[in-house]
Amino acid sequence: MVSRTKTLNVELFNRLRDLLGPKKVSHSELDKVAYSKDMWPLGQLWTRSGEVKYKPDFVVWPETTEEVSRLVKTCNETGYPLIPYGAGSGVCGGAVPVDGGIVCDLKKMNRIDAVNDKSLLATVQTGIIGEHLERRLNHKGYTLGHFPSSIYSSTLGGYLATRSAGQLSTKYGKIEDMAVSLQVVLPDGEIVRTRTAPRSATGPNFNQLFLGSEGTLGIITKATLRIHPKPEKRVFQSYLFEGVEKGCRVIRKALQMGITPAVVRLYDKADTALSLEAIDFQQEIKGCLLILIHEGWPRRCELESEMVDRICKEESGKNIGQSPAKHWWKNRYAINYKQSLLLSSEKMIFDTVEVATTWTNLLNLHQSMKSALGDQLTVLAHFSHAYRDGCSIYFTIMGQSEDMPDTEFYHKIWQDALDACIKAGGTISHHHGVGILKAKWMERQLGSWMKVYAGIKKRLDPNNILNPHKMGLP
Amino acid sequence: MVSRTKTLNVELFNRLRDLLGPKKVSHSELDKVAYSKDMWPLGQLWTRSGEVKYKPDFVVWPETTEEVSRLVKTCNETGYPLIPYGAGSGVCGGAVPVDGGIVCDLKKMNRIDAVNDKSLLATVQTGIIGEHLERRLNHKGYTLGHFPSSIYSSTLGGYLATRSAGQLSTKYGKIEDMAVSLQVVLPDGEIVRTRTAPRSATGPNFNQLFLGSEGTLGIITKATLRIHPKPEKRVFQSYLFEGVEKGCRVIRKALQMGITPAVVRLYDKADTALSLEAIDFQQEIKGCLLILIHEGWPRRCELESEMVDRICKEESGKNIGQSPAKHWWKNRYAINYKQSLLLSSEKMIFDTVEVATTWTNLLNLHQSMKSALGDQLTVLAHFSHAYRDGCSIYFTIMGQSEDMPDTEFYHKIWQDALDACIKAGGTISHHHGVGILKAKWMERQLGSWMKVYAGIKKRLDPNNILNPHKMGLP
Repeated sequence: MVSRTKTLNVELFNRLRDLLGPKKVSHSELDKVAYSKDMWPLGQLWTRSGEVKYKPDFVVWPETTEEVSRLVKTCNETGYPLIPYGAGSGVCGGAVPVDGGIVCDLKKMNRIDAVNDKSLLATVQTGIIGEHLERRLNHKGYTLGHFPSSIYSSTLGGYLATRSAGQLSTKYGKIEDMAVSLQVVLPDGEIVRTRTAPRSATGPNFNQLFLGSEGTLGIITKATLRIHPKPEKRVFQSYLFEGVEKGCRVIRKALQMGITPAVVRLYDKADTALSLEAIDFQQEIKGCLLILIHEGWPRRCELESEMVDRICKEESGKNIGQSPAKHWWKNRYAINYKQSLLLSSEKMIFDTVEVATTWTNLLNLHQSMKSALGDQLTVLAHFSHAYRDGCSIYFTIMGQSEDMPDTEFYHKIWQDALDACIKAGGTISHHHGVGILKAKWMERQLGSWMKVYAGIKKRLDPNNILNPHKMGLP
Repeated sequence: MVSRTKTLNVELFNRLRDLLGPKKVSHSELDKVAYSKDMWPLGQLWTRSGEVKYKPDFVVWPETTEEVSRLVKTCNETGYPLIPYGAGSGVCGGAVPVDGGIVCDLKKMNRIDAVNDKSLLATVQTGIIGEHLERRLNHKGYTLGHFPSSIYSSTLGGYLATRSAGQLSTKYGKIEDMAVSLQVVLPDGEIVRTRTAPRSATGPNFNQLFLGSEGTLGIITKATLRIHPKPEKRVFQSYLFEGVEKGCRVIRKALQMGITPAVVRLYDKADTALSLEAIDFQQEIKGCLLILIHEGWPRRCELESEMVDRICKEESGKNIGQSPAKHWWKNRYAINYKQSLLLSSEKMIFDTVEVATTWTNLLNLHQSMKSALGDQLTVLAHFSHAYRDGCSIYFTIMGQSEDMPDTEFYHKIWQDALDACIKAGGTISHHHGVGILKAKWMERQLGSWMKVYAGIKKRLDPNNILNPHKMGLP
């Protein structure tokens, strides 16, 4: 690493300005503060205490893949880290410039290059905001089917880099199922592109090496994505169960029959109460709420919802009609904007922990993590991404400690949560990613694969330019 | 590379015998000849002319992952290559010991470790023959859903190493969709295992780096696979079309509606005639045959077959009842055993070329490759693995040249075929893999990803021990 002196900073500024033009480079204090963090709740605690922890040296806004490539080459020559940045809604600190350097905001790269009506593919630059992409596809009669709760404040590049999963993932798949081919700027500045083919047996799948690598191996600048016709119909179902066990059994049975509801969410008792309150649902509901939404062509929706109804009856679920599911659908992004409100109260901490495991191990994982956290703060949980072989659990945790400073308590809670998760055989992230937050568990999560990952990183990025100190890498 | 003298051979033999026991090591001439080739048709031409081209120095039959690990370490110490070997039914020369060394037959590693009824997962050693695995799962009420036409003479390890796709892939997915976690012996002998979770957002998917790597990056010794309940019902449909265009449109429309028949195969006119003859179907059928088989629970099969019937009518398909589809189903593996018969005639060459592309480009690719080959030999084609975004084309080619020796003609045909494929934007393999046969096109297939692949190979296997000279690698 070249030591970054003030002189060098001036030199680099001139270089960046020559490279991108004066309007696409900033070292203003305001920009540096704005790009000093993402939506990692720990960062909110820093902000609450007036601290700005990690400022970048520069913020840049490239408009083309070639500009990104030239930026990466410049960083290799000068030793400055480059941190790819989408809309900054990550919750694990993945976009935080821990070692300064250049934050590379990709949001100007927001073009849809092509929509292929016959092969149902869209080729899109990765800086586009999720909601903009979806709306523009909707105008043409399509949907991507990717609806993370951050859709208004997150980008396609962020989805790809962190292995995002949307609220309708059970029907439409996760982002890695949608990406047919990628254009990637490698750490040496080379631009590569995977082939657009429905499937190939020509060696490793290199898309899958870059998806989820959170900017450590390359910067994804373009992707060709599978799209779908907009659904003709939507069927809403809501059921109540006494405990989560039977609700989980319904989900497992339905999925293992090959039924793929667009939405399937089961809340424990506490989460049922809080979630419905957060979306202003008026009717009082006691129990564990299961909501399902089927979408697509009418007869399939009808058949699948009928089969689900039968399974719910077998498991003593009480049909409570369409309205809770419909109400959730209408307000499905609202709950995410309550976080700042919660954190405005001093000492309060708040976060979400999303883990996953097999069906066999699911209730054990649920119980283990609840036990590890339940005495220390409020723990709510729902089950919201289901598979034939298992399911995710999404814990919402909030509370405060009288004995510890907030940041210390925050670290302790995560330590207890992920230690319990790993001990119970869960995966430490289902769809939020790793960033800084979960970096120290990566070796236990991946075992010896971590060495493979580090070896590949070393080979592709010998100067450690791309998003250093993340993911358990140096 | 250590030069392999006779003395060293004796030393290595003693080491291998100490390591595995005397019954699991051979350097007999008979074994060396038997393991000198796989089912690559070029190898059949060598055999026809009495040539044994590439003999290994040793054949070994390890029984545990630890033994495989020790073998790999021994190879690193001595410089002998190690070639993982399943049942030798590969058709691209992927298991041919081009530089001698140790052929490592994994078929003694054929245990099913566990079947999980709740999560629908089976953990299996990779040396098991596909048909044995399927039969043993059937006894417990399950199916893997993986039915390559080589199922009687291929192993799970072979499927994983080459990214195999079975005849029912449209419903059950390809092998990479089935593998939840892998145990892999790395080129330095380290044993690693990916985590069994339905999904994780914790960095790259390392399964996907080893799937399809054809033994160049590691030896997969165990896998946890998704399994399915045996289907309750099967519905058979057969239609005739005047040309392949309308048949392709039926498949595309059905797939893009989310219909997933277990089998969907469309034959061009010549392939319709030959395929039906090869399975002794008595009735004469003129046109392009489309067969579909739906399986699963009854009401879903009924709904999906009804929708397909409607689409076929829209595209002027003639419903010709169940019997061609049923007859194909009963004889679905028979056609593969006709190959040796064909090759018994002097000068005759025979092979299959399986490519894929998007729907938009499908008929262009079909036409381009037919044009490149059609004047030189007989070319049949069918479309047999369909996706929402595209489809594979499976060409069967046979013929002879009066002017050229058979092996020279063989190479010329492949040159013409894959040059045409790449020029027309296709992928050079849908599911047979690369091996030696397609190695020289890998740089054009992968572009700069080939450098990434070579870099990873160099990092993980600095002594180039594992299956050298394959896949376009050194």
